Amino acid sequence: MKGKIRYIDQNNFLNQAVNIADLLVFILLLTLTILTIWLFKHRRFRFLHETGLAMIYGLLVGVVLRYAIHVPSDMNNVTLSCNVNASPATLLVNVSGKFYEYTLKGEISGSEVNDIQDNEMLRKVTFDPEVFFNILLPPIIFHAGYSLKRRHFFRNLGSILAYAFVGTVVSCFIIGLLMYGCVMLMKQIGQLGGDFFFTDCLFFGAIVSATDPVTVLAIFNELQVDADLYALLFGESVLNDAVAVVLSSSIVGYQPEGDNSHTFEAMAMLKSFGIFLGVFSGSFALGVATGVVTLFSLTPFHVTKFTKLRDFPLLETALFFLMSWSTFLLAEACGFTGVVAVLFCGMTQAHYTFNNLSPESQDRTKQLFELLNFLAENFIFSYMGLTLFTFKNHVFNPIFIVGAFLAVFLGRAANIYPLSFLLNLGRKYKISSNFQHMMMFAGLRGAMTFALSIRDTATYARQMMFSTTLLVVFFTVWICGGGTTQMLSCQKIRGFLEQSCLMMDFLCVRLQIGPDGVERRSTKQESVWFFRIWYNFDHNYLKPILTHSGPPLTATLPACCGSLARCLTSPQAYEEQLKDSDSDLILNDSDITLAYGDITVSTDATGAHTSGTPVGGVAVNSDEALDRELAFGDHELVIRGTRLVLPMDDSEPPLPLDSRRHRHKNETMS
Amino acid sequence: MKGKIRYIDQNNFLNQAVNIADLLVFILLLTLTILTIWLFKHRRFRFLHETGLAMIYGLLVGVVLRYAIHVPSDMNNVTLSCNVNASPATLLVNVSGKFYEYTLKGEISGSEVNDIQDNEMLRKVTFDPEVFFNILLPPIIFHAGYSLKRRHFFRNLGSILAYAFVGTVVSCFIIGLLMYGCVMLMKQIGQLGGDFFFTDCLFFGAIVSATDPVTVLAIFNELQVDADLYALLFGESVLNDAVAVVLSSSIVGYQPEGDNSHTFEAMAMLKSFGIFLGVFSGSFALGVATGVVTLFSLTPFHVTKFTKLRDFPLLETALFFLMSWSTFLLAEACGFTGVVAVLFCGMTQAHYTFNNLSPESQDRTKQLFELLNFLAENFIFSYMGLTLFTFKNHVFNPIFIVGAFLAVFLGRAANIYPLSFLLNLGRKYKISSNFQHMMMFAGLRGAMTFALSIRDTATYARQMMFSTTLLVVFFTVWICGGGTTQMLSCQKIRGFLEQSCLMMDFLCVRLQIGPDGVERRSTKQESVWFFRIWYNFDHNYLKPILTHSGPPLTATLPACCGSLARCLTSPQAYEEQLKDSDSDLILNDSDITLAYGDITVSTDATGAHTSGTPVGGVAVNSDEALDRELAFGDHELVIRGTRLVLPMDDSEPPLPLDSRRHRHKNETMS
Repeated sequence: MKGKIRYIDQNNFLNQAVNIADLLVFILLLTLTILTIWLFKHRRFRFLHETGLAMIYGLLVGVVLRYAIHVPSDMNNVTLSCNVNASPATLLVNVSGKFYEYTLKGEISGSEVNDIQDNEMLRKVTFDPEVFFNILLPPIIFHAGYSLKRRHFFRNLGSILAYAFVGTVVSCFIIGLLMYGCVMLMKQIGQLGGDFFFTDCLFFGAIVSATDPVTVLAIFNELQVDADLYALLFGESVLNDAVAVVLSSSIVGYQPEGDNSHTFEAMAMLKSFGIFLGVFSGSFALGVATGVVTLFSLTPFHVTKFTKLRDFPLLETALFFLMSWSTFLLAEACGFTGVVAVLFCGMTQAHYTFNNLSPESQDRTKQLFELLNFLAENFIFSYMGLTLFTFKNHVFNPIFIVGAFLAVFLGRAANIYPLSFLLNLGRKYKISSNFQHMMMFAGLRGAMTFALSIRDTATYARQMMFSTTLLVVFFTVWICGGGTTQMLSCQKIRGFLEQSCLMMDFLCVRLQIGPDGVERRSTKQESVWFFRIWYNFDHNYLKPILTHSGPPLTATLPACCGSLARCLTSPQAYEEQLKDSDSDLILNDSDITLAYGDITVSTDATGAHTSGTPVGGVAVNSDEALDRELAFGDHELVIRGTRLVLPMDDSEPPLPLDSRRHRHKNETMS
Repeated sequence: MKGKIRYIDQNNFLNQAVNIADLLVFILLLTLTILTIWLFKHRRFRFLHETGLAMIYGLLVGVVLRYAIHVPSDMNNVTLSCNVNASPATLLVNVSGKFYEYTLKGEISGSEVNDIQDNEMLRKVTFDPEVFFNILLPPIIFHAGYSLKRRHFFRNLGSILAYAFVGTVVSCFIIGLLMYGCVMLMKQIGQLGGDFFFTDCLFFGAIVSATDPVTVLAIFNELQVDADLYALLFGESVLNDAVAVVLSSSIVGYQPEGDNSHTFEAMAMLKSFGIFLGVFSGSFALGVATGVVTLFSLTPFHVTKFTKLRDFPLLETALFFLMSWSTFLLAEACGFTGVVAVLFCGMTQAHYTFNNLSPESQDRTKQLFELLNFLAENFIFSYMGLTLFTFKNHVFNPIFIVGAFLAVFLGRAANIYPLSFLLNLGRKYKISSNFQHMMMFAGLRGAMTFALSIRDTATYARQMMFSTTLLVVFFTVWICGGGTTQMLSCQKIRGFLEQSCLMMDFLCVRLQIGPDGVERRSTKQESVWFFRIWYNFDHNYLKPILTHSGPPLTATLPACCGSLARCLTSPQAYEEQLKDSDSDLILNDSDITLAYGDITVSTDATGAHTSGTPVGGVAVNSDEALDRELAFGDHELVIRGTRLVLPMDDSEPPLPLDSRRHRHKNETMS
């Protein structure tokens, strides 16, 4: 076989200079975004989130790069004939005795070959798509897991899991079917320029089912919108990212035997389903395992005689960072999905490891991942804007685009409304219809959808998907993201402003009654039975063994295991369990249950606990603890002050609980 | 011309898996290092610094990779004949209609070609040397600049500059000459296997002149050794890294015209000198400029009505990080040296921008760069250990190695002793001979030397240099680093333990006298005149304009400029200048002037100031301020308590000045 070799000779220095110029472009973009956002925050301008803004700046720079900058193409092209019969990863070229090593960068479509010389500048701005998966997504996803508010998350765990698993799969198939109809129509009228199989449609369904309501949540956060709605949305979006990643890779893995590779076959279908289950559970297990390993590698330095060594937050933070990163790499090395593993690792770290970190390390790790998340997210969104003009193989097809918007809308609706109806049958506190509309509206597509669609743009079908996905992301982030405030007021989910005014007097009295008062809502009905069992096990055994919080094992284990219990319980657990058991919740900027207002008051589980039980008594009845913990949110919901001062700052450290309690006392006394 | 193309066919998945495995290896290494160091810190084991330990672990893993792991070489090699007459950066290969893009990785020596298949594993562990320069060194150097203690640094600025500039150049030429003699000898006895020119010798001199006393400084920090010695060593090492980088690139740039390219030529020499000056001053200017730009982009949000916006530390930190990183890229894009620009950017940020950050951002930026520095440093040192066994082209020549050790020793001696003698002629407070011995001893070679030597290992001369450099680094880090405590006690520079006992009573009295008392040492003679002028300008004009600290301009400018002064001075300056003017010093873990001991006391410039001047009076006489500020260190030196409790923690936040002052009061009262 005769192959051809073609050269693009280029000055190495220029090459490097252009690379540096790219990075400078992106730094400039991010800097501009930060400065503008700063201004927006000052003006309380909520119609455009920083990610939306990053996209706009990216678009502008893309236009400039595409149309305004012309790089002279002085490249020296040589086309050679050569006996080449493969495309290996590494190529050695022998030029008059000297060997040069070349690495495979990828296949280039025939039409692109001529473009390469002309668009060196545009190609330089194009990052390897794997960068998104291996460098930018992990910190974003880890941060999501690490800042998942556990209380409200677990309180709605059943619903969140239903939306994330059932909902995403439903949405994926609905979108896939609708798009297949659309593609058939295009074929009929001769608008299809290449192959487009049903698996491609399903793949499209999977990637656009990953929602990313970061814009909406930022506004929820500022307006202190209902904590349950927040938890539902955030929990669903975090988990459906994981589901969508694994789902899309299972769909790619669907390969019926024989030549007829795009027909339905039960065995291949089952195999894909097996892949889905295997990869998801493998990633889950690996993420949790690394979290626990981190915990154990940190723990010996924190108990008994090593306690002094809490004084090295730098080492702690470095260890924490390295272990979390290694989760991703381990999962990828094992053939699992790194992003999913990182998510569950983050959740485990937040649930157990966080409690064993020194206070300074708690701050440091939160701040570090917050910064990484911020930078990565804004980078991805500005790159998205840029790529609309710099990507060379866009395939914009009006029918496909209109069909996709419709399918995305219907897919989201088929996810939210039927599921909410079914869930409401089992929930004591229903997901109200305005909540459902809000969830429908908040189905933005973001970083994950983009990363999944840019990962492979080799075929015609994938290119069309990529172009369409970009438009879906733009539309949802700008329109849905920008309209959140209006939508909230339209749906009358305006924080706690109205409701709390009326209830204020009543509450002051009720607070003094305490959480064991008559009016306390029972949350038992809301939590599914397996969650209840897990919670009890976690609260009574795992937490006391792994962390310094929770009741001592001596109280939870039967009397016969006394010596074992004493041995396993850390000495601090005895002291600390009398303290605030809520401290194991990560209180960060997305913690909307903490109030920043001038007369905001709240109660908390332990505050209630110490007043509810006799002095010295230890609450070993975990059902009670669970109720109290779950009920906490309810109280807060109605206890809010009459006038909320909107927080100016996303990341202001929350008030210590004591001071809040103190405030409340002052208030009830006056 | 007939060229040959050779393939290494390889499973892409394996390729990726091995890459991930490398990263996992390094994460494991770093994790092990961190855990061991934690243990060492607990046991107060000071013979091995974390960097030395990282090297040992790296060595072990290198041995395992080299001898224990065998990767089956199932690669499919094809040698093809082809008309190839160049080695372009991008190669397009046409395989039966499909185009594959290849990028140039580098030239491979003939002997290596056969090794490639056999040592895929080892090659995978080999990072692109530019990674060190573009990713790992910048945070290390920035951190050095950002944490340079300004007070003691400026106090010894003249001496530090002399050591860094004159000393490094002297050391470079001494080592170069000695090595040239050594190479001549090797040529005579036929041990030289390739070209080795005088410029190569000079290059070797330049790269091994960059000292990195991180190990020594860590111990100084723990033992609270003399602040001046610390400042001399740290300042010199930071600046001589910059000098060595620029020097080595100027030497590479020395190219006489004509064919006779390795003889002496005055014009080429002058040109090299011009390159040195141009690159150094360019990098310096660029670093300072970016620092000032950062300052200005942050400042509008911090003055007058924007003051509330201090509440977004995340945005501040992100902006700070991006601007600092862009310095590096900008400098590289302009043809300057990024590392040098980053150093001066860090110093500018510490001097001006730091004052305008919100307190939380001050913590965040310090912690972020501390973490990055820690990870990068330990990564480099463990890679150093690894590379001793995994690098394939080592050239170990006993004569060259012995010669290099001798030359390094003599070069350091020729730097320290003559310069110290000359400097002592002009210094009022001499650099004592035991300080000189200590500086001689602390001339470790580290990350910068390694990064410079691994950057180019193409020729025989460079390979021999690289192997020798590795040994020099190992020896100095383990032997000199490990022997620091012994050397300190041998040279009787044991902190303040002995001296302060005797002086305690006297000091309590003297403190009450205040800094204007009779015994205060004048520091005027110690500071060079240009530094004095600069200090006055900085203190009276730059600081008030740029930051919130320093005297208001209304006090320092002539009366005629009153309205301009009022306009330029930030309102906070009026309030803040009465507060602690020392707050603009970055008090971090390396700040050894802060005492952690149980009865440690100190005075500070402002504390002295408010007692020395009449109430309401504003110190506009900057000579006084300078004296006071410079004298501060002196006081502290002798005021230390009798028994110092060695700090367990490198990064414990220093006690607030108020509490220290309070302690001192309690003490003097009792």
